[in-house]
Amino acid sequence: MSIPTPAGTVPPSIIWDNGRLRLLDQRALPVTVEYLDIDTLAAAIDAIRTLAVRGAPAIGIAAGYALARTMRDVPSASFAQTLAENAAALKAARPTAVNLAWAVDRLLDRARQSPGYTALAEEAAAIHAEDRRICRAIGEAGRHLITAGARVLTHCNAGALAVSELGTATAPMYLSHAAGVPFSVYADETRPLLQGARLTAWELAAAGIEVTVLCDNAAASLFARGDIDLVLVGTDRVTANGDVVNKIGTLNLAVLCQHYGVPFYVACPSSTFDPHTATGEAVVIEQRGATEVLGPATAQVPAYNPAFDVTPADLVTGLITDLGLIESPGKADLPRHFA
Amino acid sequence: MSIPTPAGTVPPSIIWDNGRLRLLDQRALPVTVEYLDIDTLAAAIDAIRTLAVRGAPAIGIAAGYALARTMRDVPSASFAQTLAENAAALKAARPTAVNLAWAVDRLLDRARQSPGYTALAEEAAAIHAEDRRICRAIGEAGRHLITAGARVLTHCNAGALAVSELGTATAPMYLSHAAGVPFSVYADETRPLLQGARLTAWELAAAGIEVTVLCDNAAASLFARGDIDLVLVGTDRVTANGDVVNKIGTLNLAVLCQHYGVPFYVACPSSTFDPHTATGEAVVIEQRGATEVLGPATAQVPAYNPAFDVTPADLVTGLITDLGLIESPGKADLPRHFA
Repeated sequence: MSIPTPAGTVPPSIIWDNGRLRLLDQRALPVTVEYLDIDTLAAAIDAIRTLAVRGAPAIGIAAGYALARTMRDVPSASFAQTLAENAAALKAARPTAVNLAWAVDRLLDRARQSPGYTALAEEAAAIHAEDRRICRAIGEAGRHLITAGARVLTHCNAGALAVSELGTATAPMYLSHAAGVPFSVYADETRPLLQGARLTAWELAAAGIEVTVLCDNAAASLFARGDIDLVLVGTDRVTANGDVVNKIGTLNLAVLCQHYGVPFYVACPSSTFDPHTATGEAVVIEQRGATEVLGPATAQVPAYNPAFDVTPADLVTGLITDLGLIESPGKADLPRHFA
Repeated sequence: MSIPTPAGTVPPSIIWDNGRLRLLDQRALPVTVEYLDIDTLAAAIDAIRTLAVRGAPAIGIAAGYALARTMRDVPSASFAQTLAENAAALKAARPTAVNLAWAVDRLLDRARQSPGYTALAEEAAAIHAEDRRICRAIGEAGRHLITAGARVLTHCNAGALAVSELGTATAPMYLSHAAGVPFSVYADETRPLLQGARLTAWELAAAGIEVTVLCDNAAASLFARGDIDLVLVGTDRVTANGDVVNKIGTLNLAVLCQHYGVPFYVACPSSTFDPHTATGEAVVIEQRGATEVLGPATAQVPAYNPAFDVTPADLVTGLITDLGLIESPGKADLPRHFA
């Protein structure tokens, strides 16, 4: 089914309506706004595997609902057996997605206490509600940073599409926009996969927020003109000392912020804090294939294509978390904050 | 005609062989190494207009040869008239290309002194020889910077394809490589038009130099790892105070160099020094269309797409020129150096 983008709202990435699951097909964005009906285990696995749904939290939420959905009409005699099989199959759809296994396991735990479809559906909805609450708390902790006339630069997509409702880096923007604060956003296109140009720009525009896309290498010229008031990005992991692991290109913005005296903020769900890793240097960075960088019209040479980089804590002005704003994380005792 | 890439050499962008002009078709690079025979005025205009030949110096050299070629068999009775017509038509092929008009005018001046095809062909060859000499002088001035094991980062294409033989930013690399110095180059892909991934990577690889392509936003992570020993780029204009106008993304590298303590060098033919413009702030930066940034698979929003940025002189370690190496151009009296 195809739904037109309503002016001023972002179409939700996940819709659960009385036992019916629909996922916004992110493969088709922004060309087509189209929902997939997820009625079967096969459909759910396919959607997860082919990135129709993407972003760690969104995958977890979708998997929870999908597992509940597949159990709706299963008779009690075969319930436990089918649940175990479906859960295992879902987890295998993207084995490295931590949130996927986490959400499925949470439903399995719940089923051990109260077997049956209703409890599973409740637990999936609870995961979704918690994620929305976390995003909203991040938004509340950071909305004061988006002042009237602010020009915000962001990178990649830490938005509603990757998470739920408000997103993480976008949550302060959405709340300020809802409160009538006028501001504008610059979205890095975010090579090589262009999540900024494809997803962030699309969802902000759909929400009625003024957004301009730029090539990643053009950011410095905006700083030099004095046209950036703050940078606001998401993160995949924050280490014990406050180092920030995020999409490749984030470190570049942090260095520019220090050079030009611009605040650099990171939206950080408390779940992304990793107290067991001392510093960013200990994080193994995923190196991806050359074909993401090099196409048929480029030279056929090796490519350096890391998925993430590490921004040292001392370049981070603050972490905007669901537990509140943590200023100067490089000097803060983060394990205490996140305890 | 199609010529295989000989190992260890860069196919020349312009070949003049006994009155026959051939241009490497840069539109087809790096997929196909193909030469266009330029036998007519129409063929020359088409090659210039459609960017089969590109890069300001290369366009000038090609236009000089093309004008001579079109006059080869013109009888003396109609020589002056035809020369004026052909010159005007060539100049109109890309009206904003300064080197094009400059080269054509130089041939017209020569024809006023010594009419006839032979003088025109000599003058075109002289322009070509001068450009080669300038590139070689830049190479000699900068080759000591490319030491054994050096890891050099470059941006866009200031190479043999855009200029002649050795290029400008690439000239120190080619001379060091020819001298047997082992080093490696990282080439920014250079969004939006990917001249780094398409052209620089191709020509360095063709010359047998080890080259790796990266997305522009990944450079910071290389600096953080200590994997860049120097940055070496070209320039379109150097203002009187030493500010450097070059392809968008250059400023970004200069800021990274300062942050990480890495030398930032600019190859600068003396012809690019502009004593009449006080600082980079006075330079009007060409803003290009959104379609270069945004494709059919991205959000349809505005794009910020400047062609160039300005690197302040105090971020430049040195200018590598055909008149020698100028250290700390921000503190040097450039008009005296270039006088």
